[in-house]
Amino acid sequence: MTLPPAAPPVALILFGATGDLSQRMLIPSLYHLWRDGLLPKGLVLVGAARSPLDDDGFRAFAAESLGRFVAAEHKDDASVAAFLQDWRYSAVDVNSADSMATLKATLPSLTDGNVVFYLATSPSIYGSIAQGLQQAGMTGGQSRVVIEKPIGKNLATSIEVNQAVGKIFREEQIYRIDHYLGKETVQNLLVLRFGNMLFEPLWNNQGIEQVQITLSETVGVEGRAAYYDTMGALRDMVQNHVLQLLALVAMEPPSDMNAAAVRNEKIKVLRSLRPITPDMISTHTVAGQYTAGAVNSGAVKGYLDEDGVAQNSINDSFVALRADIDNWRWSGVPFYIRTGKRMPTRYSEIVIVFKPVPHNIFGRGGGILAPNKLIIRLQPEEVISLMVMAKEPGLARDGMQMRDVPLDVSLTTAFAGQRRRIAYERLMLDVIEGNGTLFVRRDEVEAAWAWIDAIAEGWKRTGHTPKPYTAGSWGPSSAIALPERFGHRWHD
Amino acid sequence: MTLPPAAPPVALILFGATGDLSQRMLIPSLYHLWRDGLLPKGLVLVGAARSPLDDDGFRAFAAESLGRFVAAEHKDDASVAAFLQDWRYSAVDVNSADSMATLKATLPSLTDGNVVFYLATSPSIYGSIAQGLQQAGMTGGQSRVVIEKPIGKNLATSIEVNQAVGKIFREEQIYRIDHYLGKETVQNLLVLRFGNMLFEPLWNNQGIEQVQITLSETVGVEGRAAYYDTMGALRDMVQNHVLQLLALVAMEPPSDMNAAAVRNEKIKVLRSLRPITPDMISTHTVAGQYTAGAVNSGAVKGYLDEDGVAQNSINDSFVALRADIDNWRWSGVPFYIRTGKRMPTRYSEIVIVFKPVPHNIFGRGGGILAPNKLIIRLQPEEVISLMVMAKEPGLARDGMQMRDVPLDVSLTTAFAGQRRRIAYERLMLDVIEGNGTLFVRRDEVEAAWAWIDAIAEGWKRTGHTPKPYTAGSWGPSSAIALPERFGHRWHD
Repeated sequence: MTLPPAAPPVALILFGATGDLSQRMLIPSLYHLWRDGLLPKGLVLVGAARSPLDDDGFRAFAAESLGRFVAAEHKDDASVAAFLQDWRYSAVDVNSADSMATLKATLPSLTDGNVVFYLATSPSIYGSIAQGLQQAGMTGGQSRVVIEKPIGKNLATSIEVNQAVGKIFREEQIYRIDHYLGKETVQNLLVLRFGNMLFEPLWNNQGIEQVQITLSETVGVEGRAAYYDTMGALRDMVQNHVLQLLALVAMEPPSDMNAAAVRNEKIKVLRSLRPITPDMISTHTVAGQYTAGAVNSGAVKGYLDEDGVAQNSINDSFVALRADIDNWRWSGVPFYIRTGKRMPTRYSEIVIVFKPVPHNIFGRGGGILAPNKLIIRLQPEEVISLMVMAKEPGLARDGMQMRDVPLDVSLTTAFAGQRRRIAYERLMLDVIEGNGTLFVRRDEVEAAWAWIDAIAEGWKRTGHTPKPYTAGSWGPSSAIALPERFGHRWHD
Repeated sequence: MTLPPAAPPVALILFGATGDLSQRMLIPSLYHLWRDGLLPKGLVLVGAARSPLDDDGFRAFAAESLGRFVAAEHKDDASVAAFLQDWRYSAVDVNSADSMATLKATLPSLTDGNVVFYLATSPSIYGSIAQGLQQAGMTGGQSRVVIEKPIGKNLATSIEVNQAVGKIFREEQIYRIDHYLGKETVQNLLVLRFGNMLFEPLWNNQGIEQVQITLSETVGVEGRAAYYDTMGALRDMVQNHVLQLLALVAMEPPSDMNAAAVRNEKIKVLRSLRPITPDMISTHTVAGQYTAGAVNSGAVKGYLDEDGVAQNSINDSFVALRADIDNWRWSGVPFYIRTGKRMPTRYSEIVIVFKPVPHNIFGRGGGILAPNKLIIRLQPEEVISLMVMAKEPGLARDGMQMRDVPLDVSLTTAFAGQRRRIAYERLMLDVIEGNGTLFVRRDEVEAAWAWIDAIAEGWKRTGHTPKPYTAGSWGPSSAIALPERFGHRWHD
């Protein structure tokens, strides 16, 4: 069920064009794509938002975005000016037919409805935008719509969002972004797994001891309390980013890289996640909430003292989990997950810990044989390291001395001189090219929510409230204890 | 059958102390060991040779060796002088009982015959030296004797050498050096194989497509024609170095690293080598002989024009082979071997070529999926590289672009700041410590000769004479064709 190649769109309409995401990520990404000659010829870029700006007013806004979020060496006045010339702006009220007609009038004539609608707005208006677009006759043919998390805050509300958009657009027109999938190292994980013979024979419960996924942030709620305090780490991070990474690590080899094949394998993983029942809550989950402490040598306040956080909030700013995948490949292999705010450092990392060698032929003198590890670091730098035991050079008196050394694919050094791209660039280009492989299908979103809901429900039922942890620490001590309960430790 | 730990020797007697090997390798190695505090306290070093030198004369000779073959940063006048103080010299005639008695008198009193005899002499006098030592009463207890190639020039003569020494010394007193086994990367091969889970599941005919061992030299016969013209590449290089490397690559995991366990596994490999019968000579072997050409931009003469080479010599200065190991692990996996003089560059390398992935999920756009390779380079620099496919960063229009990138353990950079040791240092220290793991047992020497003899015999019987190759090329064109016959290519 590969789709025929999509015709290049004639226009991209960016809803929420004056918002934070547009400013930081989307307008700079479009600029880089444009500068690298990757946008289709003549593509019309349209900013759409409520603000009563004219074209020039919006161009000034976009210029400011580029000024702040594109490094100096990648821009010059001439190219910025030329890029901005492609932009138009339309002040829209999505509930007004007139307003949508005005928007449509900014576009070149649509031959096959081939427009990309990028909804960088609150999910609460995804449905209204979709309806407005339909009423204006813009949603046919190969038009595509891009939406992003949060797609609901549980299974029921995610179904609502998906249905509101799904009434207007067919599933294959809908591109659900998880920007983690746009990262180079995530795509490299697929190449490592399926472009090499090296790992596949070990990539199962015979060869892998455990898998760890850590997504840690140093920031606190940072003015997003109104949103975050209703979500928490479990729903804000695990439901999407973490489970997507987990699915890519665990999936069976797809028959090819097309969207259907890859997503069919991912959904199988998500549906194989062992439900966390109330009796597993205390052994397999830890929720945490930061208290006042210090991050990067600066004093920071506790979660409950953040502006906009409810008094006595029992929202989780940290979560640690043990997930299990109930299938032949992964039976018995723990996937340890942790993510949180106000951690000591910001990084995102997948660690595959292989089994130890069955027998140490070197004796004690050689040192401990550390198990092999494959470390896929997404953030802050993108690096893949394979930890192997090697002999230390030299003449140890009592035989060979060994230690584990990293075999690194540093994406910054191995491919030096290349600009590090914004994850959105890859994803925007894929939308434009009609390639859905790195996007999330509706059934994935809903399977992930079903698994997450059971945990949230379990917390409620068992009265599991977040344990306090000092800002700048690795979460509550019970989070350290979680893998230790099963004989493992968090990778440093 | 681990031996009890040997008592540290009280003396090391270096026969052939004024020879080339002593000067270039052995005296400098002893110096480095001494300087690093690795020699036993009070160890007496005795040079023994025919030259009528006194202690001071020999010390001057040793000082000159150090002057030429130890880098300036590793020596200073005080330490050189202190090291030389430990040396004595004895002019010996090994056939004279008086002379041997004089030698013995240079030694401190022997408590348990614990002396190392290092025979850096022609193999033709190994037997006489052993006899002389026995008659002087020096061969008992834990005394050890070190000998090196050539141990014979075929199976029959190697048995003679082994018997001559074996009449006097028990097998566990005899340390047969193959200096390749002293190289860091060779020992690292063992650590990589048996210290990591990563490779073992692939290390067989399911995971490995082929193995290549190349030992290339740029030099010609260089004044060694009298010896070399009676040996050739097959007997000078393949019988020992190449087959030792092959055995280490192919052996089953030993139960531990002791000499008996490791050598029991190596001998199993050598005995499993499929004999090359006369009908296989033309498909599985190529002999070559260099003609005039250029190496490193300098004109060099042909083999037949070298001083000391017999007119119309049909000696091989190059050999390429396909070896097969007839056991469960390796059935069907070719081991391609090539070694020769007057090649374009000097290097020694083992290349493990893994099987290709069973199916390319990335399609044609992503580029060719190169099979994984593990490259163990012994010379000129010692590097271990694992070639894996990774994604090239960036936004290829038609999907992901991949290429193979090396994951390197550079023993020079990963362990920076460490002096690169002479292979003999490791081996001399092992002799002193009574550790025979990296030495070659008699049955290995003889099994290797039996396999080599069949090839030499096959060449004779089938009239297979060396094909000419231009000095500075990679051997005769039939050597290029050899792996191609089986669908493979030499690694560049």
